[in-house]
Amino acid sequence: MGKLERHATIADVAALAGVSVGTASKALNGRGSLREETRMRVREAARQLSFEANAGARSLHSGRTYTVGMITTDTIGRFSIPVLMGAEDALGAGEMSVFLCDGRDDPIREQYYVKTLLSRRVDGMIVTGRRTEARAPIGANLPVPVVYAFISSADPGDCSVVPDEAGGARKAVEHLLAVGRTRIAHITGPEHHNSARVRAAAATERLAEDGLSLVAPPLFGGWSEVWGRQAVGILLAGRTEFDAVFCGSDQIARGVCDALRAAGRRVPQDVALIGFDNWDVMTEACQPPLTSIDLDLEGLGRSAAQMLLAAINGSPSPGRHAHPCRLVVRESTVRESTTVPLP
Amino acid sequence: MGKLERHATIADVAALAGVSVGTASKALNGRGSLREETRMRVREAARQLSFEANAGARSLHSGRTYTVGMITTDTIGRFSIPVLMGAEDALGAGEMSVFLCDGRDDPIREQYYVKTLLSRRVDGMIVTGRRTEARAPIGANLPVPVVYAFISSADPGDCSVVPDEAGGARKAVEHLLAVGRTRIAHITGPEHHNSARVRAAAATERLAEDGLSLVAPPLFGGWSEVWGRQAVGILLAGRTEFDAVFCGSDQIARGVCDALRAAGRRVPQDVALIGFDNWDVMTEACQPPLTSIDLDLEGLGRSAAQMLLAAINGSPSPGRHAHPCRLVVRESTVRESTTVPLP
Repeated sequence: MGKLERHATIADVAALAGVSVGTASKALNGRGSLREETRMRVREAARQLSFEANAGARSLHSGRTYTVGMITTDTIGRFSIPVLMGAEDALGAGEMSVFLCDGRDDPIREQYYVKTLLSRRVDGMIVTGRRTEARAPIGANLPVPVVYAFISSADPGDCSVVPDEAGGARKAVEHLLAVGRTRIAHITGPEHHNSARVRAAAATERLAEDGLSLVAPPLFGGWSEVWGRQAVGILLAGRTEFDAVFCGSDQIARGVCDALRAAGRRVPQDVALIGFDNWDVMTEACQPPLTSIDLDLEGLGRSAAQMLLAAINGSPSPGRHAHPCRLVVRESTVRESTTVPLP
Repeated sequence: MGKLERHATIADVAALAGVSVGTASKALNGRGSLREETRMRVREAARQLSFEANAGARSLHSGRTYTVGMITTDTIGRFSIPVLMGAEDALGAGEMSVFLCDGRDDPIREQYYVKTLLSRRVDGMIVTGRRTEARAPIGANLPVPVVYAFISSADPGDCSVVPDEAGGARKAVEHLLAVGRTRIAHITGPEHHNSARVRAAAATERLAEDGLSLVAPPLFGGWSEVWGRQAVGILLAGRTEFDAVFCGSDQIARGVCDALRAAGRRVPQDVALIGFDNWDVMTEACQPPLTSIDLDLEGLGRSAAQMLLAAINGSPSPGRHAHPCRLVVRESTVRESTTVPLP
């Protein structure tokens, strides 16, 4: 890139310093905690690229800022909000604004929002939504870059950042194995839902690697507490012995927990219990508090926004990028007094 | 208004026909269920104002549409989302788009979004948020109209649409009285939270109208299930006799329900239980399903957007407008087999 051809962007500075766009932004704005060495390296890169003057000009009232349109394909809710927050956090207030638009599973509304956002001169778009099946691209030959977050585009040339759900399910099973459980049942959402199938398959596969299998075929049903309670009834009626239940969502796990207690089974002493989503409303109210898998949706949104900013600045990241899940251990798998050999 | 001065807007048509902007829109677009007489009256008004041609021009690709910026002062969540959806529903897709921006309780971020939205040529703004205390106006002499929804502006000249929380609390108490309960306890959120104080005061006042009082002073705590469970312990330890509990939120009520069952008290036979918010995650999973007060946030958002559209078209509605709450009866106050004399 010739320095005289265009002004250096923050992505140029980040690339030269060998850090992410978000880190470069933090270093230049004095926000966040960074190692002093990193801060110095970014500042030196900015100096080399004559970025200082630009940065001064990017004030609240003028200068280059990013405006990003985020379209949810289905209803806005507890899955899209953290993605939005993470995307906003990729840069700070005053450097990026995100407009959220609610597509509501309505292709006409979605296309209307694409047109409106373009007419409002956004620099790029993030498409998000709850379903994890690949979807058709939101448009052909759009004049701005698009990144898919949480959901993915069916076009492999598009950039998609998706949660590593299979990896999350593997972590759940590995944790149950690590706390000494081997007779594991799986209760999850509807079989037609991609997430339910992917998680069940990954759990089965991980157990097979240790020469084990689920104690019963996965119980597919709904994502609700009510289904969790019903499924425990099915398990107990089948007289299947089990010492752990991996649930496809925290709501299911909450229902399972209540039904187990009602049946006189103690969690975690008799049955270790793990959910999925790490939704605080469920994990905190559960008795005992629920171990869960966190999709790290904020991290995913941050990553998607950084890829979008890089694409805006000429460095796209085509393809499907899997964002890792995290295990969050609470008392439903580990008694407070117990020391557990974590893997 | 002289017909030659400007093009007639849908608000003009609505005013002439004596209907809301939303109804006028539905009538002209053939959507929704309306009485044929209403539809005819709106069409006649449109004809008189030469609105027909305009309406034809307002296609997906051109013509007058409304773009509204919605700023949440605190984090986007289960209170702001229905307000957004209601606002979007005030007109249809292709006639209004709403950009949602997340202020996160950060005044700098909020001001930044105001500037960004104005620079993106929005026609008006809706300010929303979870706290029900009046807040400072979002800006002085803004070039577009602003409506506050759910929250309210401290400036009485601003337009605010707020839930009638006191009315909702009164409806809760009236329902408990109607199903024959007189020894009512109240468990709610933190006392420093405006909603908790307003609801407690209204419940107390409504009981006093029947010569009754709460069986114990309101138990202020947190909005969580855990607090609901703890508060039942406090009530039982105090040996206070009670036959009903009015809770300040559904989460609290869920915790109360679980703790009552654990203590051997049957809901609703021994204790009738009512929550607040009508949050399906809680009301449906509760055993038995929970009676609650619905803030009708979608209706509130719709109303706010209609007032905003009217203001954009020259007819502002200054002042504080209370939007009524609704009682939703489920089994936690009424046994399935019982016939109840509703008021």
